[in-house]
Amino acid sequence: MTTRLAPPVFGEPYLLTPGPLTTSRQTKEAMLRDWGSWDDDFKAVTAEVRRKLLAMAGITDDSYLCVPMQGSGSFAVEAALSTAIPKDGKALILMNGAYGKRAAQMVDYLGRAHIDLDKGDYLPPQPDEVDKLLSDNPGITTVFLVHCETSSGILNPLKAIAEVVKRHNKIFLVDSMSAFGALPITAEDIGFDLLVSSANKCVEGIPGFGFVIVRKDLLQASKGRAHSLALDLYEQWVYMEKTGQWRFTPPTHAVVAFREALKQHEAEGGVDGRLKRYSDNRDRLVAGMRKMGFKTLLDEQWLSPIITTFFSPAHKNFEFGRFYNELKQRQFIIYPGKLTLAESFRVGCIGQIDVPVIDELLAAIAETLDVMGVDDCTPAPL
Amino acid sequence: MTTRLAPPVFGEPYLLTPGPLTTSRQTKEAMLRDWGSWDDDFKAVTAEVRRKLLAMAGITDDSYLCVPMQGSGSFAVEAALSTAIPKDGKALILMNGAYGKRAAQMVDYLGRAHIDLDKGDYLPPQPDEVDKLLSDNPGITTVFLVHCETSSGILNPLKAIAEVVKRHNKIFLVDSMSAFGALPITAEDIGFDLLVSSANKCVEGIPGFGFVIVRKDLLQASKGRAHSLALDLYEQWVYMEKTGQWRFTPPTHAVVAFREALKQHEAEGGVDGRLKRYSDNRDRLVAGMRKMGFKTLLDEQWLSPIITTFFSPAHKNFEFGRFYNELKQRQFIIYPGKLTLAESFRVGCIGQIDVPVIDELLAAIAETLDVMGVDDCTPAPL
Ligand SMILES: Cc1ncc(COP(=O)(O)O)c(C=O)c1O
Ligand SMILES: Cc1ncc(COP(=O)(O)O)c(C=O)c1O
Repeated sequence: MTTRLAPPVFGEPYLLTPGPLTTSRQTKEAMLRDWGSWDDDFKAVTAEVRRKLLAMAGITDDSYLCVPMQGSGSFAVEAALSTAIPKDGKALILMNGAYGKRAAQMVDYLGRAHIDLDKGDYLPPQPDEVDKLLSDNPGITTVFLVHCETSSGILNPLKAIAEVVKRHNKIFLVDSMSAFGALPITAEDIGFDLLVSSANKCVEGIPGFGFVIVRKDLLQASKGRAHSLALDLYEQWVYMEKTGQWRFTPPTHAVVAFREALKQHEAEGGVDGRLKRYSDNRDRLVAGMRKMGFKTLLDEQWLSPIITTFFSPAHKNFEFGRFYNELKQRQFIIYPGKLTLAESFRVGCIGQIDVPVIDELLAAIAETLDVMGVDDCTPAPL
Repeated sequence: MTTRLAPPVFGEPYLLTPGPLTTSRQTKEAMLRDWGSWDDDFKAVTAEVRRKLLAMAGITDDSYLCVPMQGSGSFAVEAALSTAIPKDGKALILMNGAYGKRAAQMVDYLGRAHIDLDKGDYLPPQPDEVDKLLSDNPGITTVFLVHCETSSGILNPLKAIAEVVKRHNKIFLVDSMSAFGALPITAEDIGFDLLVSSANKCVEGIPGFGFVIVRKDLLQASKGRAHSLALDLYEQWVYMEKTGQWRFTPPTHAVVAFREALKQHEAEGGVDGRLKRYSDNRDRLVAGMRKMGFKTLLDEQWLSPIITTFFSPAHKNFEFGRFYNELKQRQFIIYPGKLTLAESFRVGCIGQIDVPVIDELLAAIAETLDVMGVDDCTPAPL
């Protein structure tokens, strides 16, 4: 993509973060209207959004359903976990970062059993490890995997793990929060049973709700499983099916903005188009940063087009707070790191960002390093 | 209030509903910007909103806290219930409509004990009934009351019940969802321990989050009580206190719109100013409807300035679906009734609505009745 995206207005900074993102003016302008949540016009918006999300996951029949859930993405993850793990079931939680860890905590709240494969800050779970765990623990009913673990930016080996999980005939729940819409994931290819994402990630909507794409028979069998009335995915679905409405007040403006964002997603060429733009962003970013001497946490093959972790320079003049503020003054908001092993920061490639923006960012970083008196970006040895 | 409010644009209808509401252009325009949820600028918005909500409840010291919660109002109610009822506690749920009923269901999900005083569709719970129940059931720890039960529009006898609850030294949780911001309720006057409301009611924000105003010592004592990670009010508070951020992605645009709505609330004279406008709306509405022969469900003393239930005319030509659509064509969206005993509909008085709008609505209703051939608005006998 070489045509320039419209820059944000009001002198607001670009959000080079994992969301909320820089969204298009058009998406935000869709919020300049109020909608009655009970009215047919709004029901039609909800129906359209649900239909298009299913299509994005390559679903063409009624074997899967899309159920939106108010709140942030974590609310949808928690609702999905309580749907996916029978009360007397057991989950295998594959974790290599903050979002896998959070899922295990959620299962603790649910009072359901789980085994964790904890790979630390960023190492990918290996298919053969999963295979062995599933063979050794026949009581496992459900496997949870994060698609892109946003805390490091790693793209987990989804397809290889999916094959193992399906071979063992387990329920497969994928947290594709930060990937869905930009990385291809279809029911046919991956055979997931549940997929979770939210409005303010790669579809580039504004925050306010998440959604679960779930196998219909599994959802039907989950009646009574929920630990929470508000997060009861089954009841949300039943009510929506019957009335076309959300069970409780929907974030109307976020939903209407999301419909607008979906149109732009299509116009950009769907998942392929978005992947292309984000990959271009990532390639330019990583190349430019390496040229300045920065090191990425991950090797080439694990780098996602979503967000990239860079080690902080060991240079005595480098201080993240200052770096952040200098970049913010130059209209770029970056994101802190989340590693336990080393100082780091993250730069997102998603949202209304294109290569010219990345070039401006790189120039701003060079300028900032100069201002800070950092002339060497080598990180501390691990 | 006689100055005219700015009408909605895009030919959109007025929402005469209990929310989402017709909001001001200014409030919606605040959403034309994207905010980084981790950034200081957004933290300042969150802090401002929390501070102003406490002030609205008349709180001037740090004995109470305001904790926002992503999702619709019900999410905040559920979070508040799980904070307010110890695991081995017991709740008394005062119910006279849908929202009291929903609270009892939530307590069932929580797996905690409750006793219900169910007054049916609209009769108010009486202070002496509450007194007797509390005397007879010393195990009750927590009393739940809906301030304005939006399903009928009744204004419950809050102060008299609060006195009884406080005399018995119980935890008092008030669902003031549809009343807070327009009906005076202060910690000093009512002595509530928790109060719940949401963004899209009388403060006239857009939907996306609710909030709980809660006694600090009670919140501190509630650690570990939550049944849900996402709805854990204690953890939300701890994280917010430590970082200034929301624990999970906030509905940034809804929060920023809410700050804008709060400014307009102040400019209108705060709770008093808003109560005056809504009361004027209600008075004009009820007088005009009665003149056409409609009957209200409730007697004068129970009518809230939030929403009013009218019985549907028994006339053979009256059909709610048609009535609704004719009014919608005339740019007014009304709300269906929620009574089990009789056909009814509701008209809200909240949002960016003033007396001239009510006059237009009354004219549209008269025209609609004419078009439908309804010349008698007497309801069926009960
Ligand atoms: C992979 C993943 N899972 C879960 C979440 C949680 O989403 P939220 O912050 O909207 O609750 C995120 C957020 O970035 C994420 O990237
Ligand atoms: C009194 C009361 N409680 C609870 C709710 C539930 O709020 P929500 O629909 O935002 O979940 C409402 C909504 O109108 C209400 O009026």
